[in-house]
Amino acid sequence: MLVVQKYGGTSVAGTERIRNVAERVRQSRHKGNKVVVILSAMAGETNRLVDLAKQVSKEPDGREYDQLVSTGEQVTIALLALTLQSMGVPARSFLGHQVRLLTDSSFSKARIKSIDAEIIHKELNKNTVVVIAGFQGTDPEGNITTLGRGGSDTTAVAIAAALKADACEIYTDVDGVYTADPRVCPEARLIPIITYEEMLELASSGAKVLQSRSVELAANYRVPVWVKSAFLPVKKNGSKGGGTLVTNRAMEEMVVSGIAHDRNEAKVAVRGLADRPGVAARLFAPLAKADINVDMIVQNISEDGYTDLTFTVSKIELPKALRIMHQQVRKIGAQKIEADEKIAKVSIVGVGMKSHAGVASRMFETLAREGVNIQMISTSEIKVSVVIREAEMEKAVRALHKAFGLGKK
Amino acid sequence: MLVVQKYGGTSVAGTERIRNVAERVRQSRHKGNKVVVILSAMAGETNRLVDLAKQVSKEPDGREYDQLVSTGEQVTIALLALTLQSMGVPARSFLGHQVRLLTDSSFSKARIKSIDAEIIHKELNKNTVVVIAGFQGTDPEGNITTLGRGGSDTTAVAIAAALKADACEIYTDVDGVYTADPRVCPEARLIPIITYEEMLELASSGAKVLQSRSVELAANYRVPVWVKSAFLPVKKNGSKGGGTLVTNRAMEEMVVSGIAHDRNEAKVAVRGLADRPGVAARLFAPLAKADINVDMIVQNISEDGYTDLTFTVSKIELPKALRIMHQQVRKIGAQKIEADEKIAKVSIVGVGMKSHAGVASRMFETLAREGVNIQMISTSEIKVSVVIREAEMEKAVRALHKAFGLGKK
Repeated sequence: MLVVQKYGGTSVAGTERIRNVAERVRQSRHKGNKVVVILSAMAGETNRLVDLAKQVSKEPDGREYDQLVSTGEQVTIALLALTLQSMGVPARSFLGHQVRLLTDSSFSKARIKSIDAEIIHKELNKNTVVVIAGFQGTDPEGNITTLGRGGSDTTAVAIAAALKADACEIYTDVDGVYTADPRVCPEARLIPIITYEEMLELASSGAKVLQSRSVELAANYRVPVWVKSAFLPVKKNGSKGGGTLVTNRAMEEMVVSGIAHDRNEAKVAVRGLADRPGVAARLFAPLAKADINVDMIVQNISEDGYTDLTFTVSKIELPKALRIMHQQVRKIGAQKIEADEKIAKVSIVGVGMKSHAGVASRMFETLAREGVNIQMISTSEIKVSVVIREAEMEKAVRALHKAFGLGKK
Repeated sequence: MLVVQKYGGTSVAGTERIRNVAERVRQSRHKGNKVVVILSAMAGETNRLVDLAKQVSKEPDGREYDQLVSTGEQVTIALLALTLQSMGVPARSFLGHQVRLLTDSSFSKARIKSIDAEIIHKELNKNTVVVIAGFQGTDPEGNITTLGRGGSDTTAVAIAAALKADACEIYTDVDGVYTADPRVCPEARLIPIITYEEMLELASSGAKVLQSRSVELAANYRVPVWVKSAFLPVKKNGSKGGGTLVTNRAMEEMVVSGIAHDRNEAKVAVRGLADRPGVAARLFAPLAKADINVDMIVQNISEDGYTDLTFTVSKIELPKALRIMHQQVRKIGAQKIEADEKIAKVSIVGVGMKSHAGVASRMFETLAREGVNIQMISTSEIKVSVVIREAEMEKAVRALHKAFGLGKK
């Protein structure tokens, strides 16, 4: 088997933990697997580098920023290769540009264009463990680019796809994907198998276990992805405690397979907006231009030619978004702009929704019974998201988890 | 003027100090200079990385080691470029491979083969400050290589040579080259101008202000090198307090221009060695093969067909050297092997020695008067080095400094 293993920042925080990773790699190789390892930077290191950049520059240039923050992964891959070698396991580390992981030039959120699989296959055929820096690539001019936060998951899936690997194993500090966040909902259960679609909705709804771009990529290239604990004893794929398999078919079609929550969004309401064609475009185009990601958008029914527009952005980008909104409103006119950071988004996700009616209404009834007021609603084919008060989030998650029978076996 | 400026680890230790470097660069550019900056890693960072490598591997593989330790410079160049940009100065950072600084594949002590000056000139012509990582390059296979400790000086001189720069300015924590180490000899004076030859002898005799490889390179390509303080106010080249100029001609031919000392060597004596042709080669060839640098070698006059060989190596390499010596002696036979770490080397250097007789004897007389016993002697055309007891080193330096009139104006 050709296996791509990815280890996150907490799994490589310090040489002791790197030794633990090396031991897992050795075991996988001992079973006869060819192993490619993708690593993140040590936990905290990327933040330290970002902090240095902030000390010298308010709006750091993307190219220099990426040159800076890509060093964290370079340290961990070299250390893992050295550790493997000291255990007698041949290993070789590669930076993004050394495996020609080509991206576009969108610094800090570059998109992967191609990978030179030949370089990697050549090393694997020599029986060498190939250790590759996650999160980074190079553009056609040789500038170092990074893929954005959590980009190492994307690196792992992209490399698994390029190599046509048998499995992509994402090792993290949880042992799989749960029906809800166990810290919020103690009855949450591990989901043994889940579809790409569901995983994608969960990831983009705030479940932090996988980066949504990596799930998208896995779905496109049909890469089977395992989410596993980097700290529990190694178990066979698919066995009890063996993590979650993300694939193109669920074992059984649960109506709802999981509940996700997200506290990182803020709500912006633009009230008393003249309801003319093109007004939404004039509000949102400059946000897009400033690379601010708008998540939910709700427009009220127009009244006397005026309307309200409400949308959510990440809390970090709220000040920038408000600055832009005030500029735009000065041009196009509106009554007022309101912002609220004390909100949370709760989402239910499940492929079963496609065929089962009444899922959304059961969600609303459950929340009503708990006295939780719904501020915004957004739906997709396999997801319903609501925005509620942040203080009521935990209560809402637990009630929904129970209402959809996720706690029972 | 095209100026290459190099700043060492203490000059870039922290974002405050990096701002100081940026200010100096800005001033130089403001005078109309095109500026290329070469940086070291933050003071302590390379040691931290080396320490991590040691934690995971007793004898780290060169390729992975270089992959690891080259990250320190990547951090400082990106931070300097960001700092310059935030001051309104266009700047761009480059790694070794990004300016095609090609080296051989001798990891951790790679030799520079070529540099793509065009890439740098193109940026300079756009009026951009070019910031380049010192200490690192790339081999023809794309592996990252490093040039060895202090390699950033060599990077600076090599780039100055490739660009045909008007000056190469090495900024450090001292304000120039002194007649002796001021911490040992309070009467030491700054040398305003010194020849490459003298600087080379001083550097290889333990004066730490410039790496000897960089001086060699400067001499070969006739690059004028200034040694200056990174912390004192900026002064005009050649003005009082303006540092030391290393060039091909001295202002006046001092008989002795400086005194260097080195506490980092250890002495190894092989006694009772059968004095046959080829015996020295059999002793030293395996040392060379193990990359152990032997400095001084003294062979006693043979007596009854037996001789003693004494040599010095760096203290760090002593255990390895002794291991090899014991192996070799087992094959070729000798009475015993002795090692002494409590030694120091003191050297007097000056181009004037070529034409002035009696310099060495004045040195020996001075040491005899101080009661300092000489254990080994080695001479070159412009240098005399002696090995003495480490405890007597400071006394010897001060006495010699006085005897050769270096303290007076």
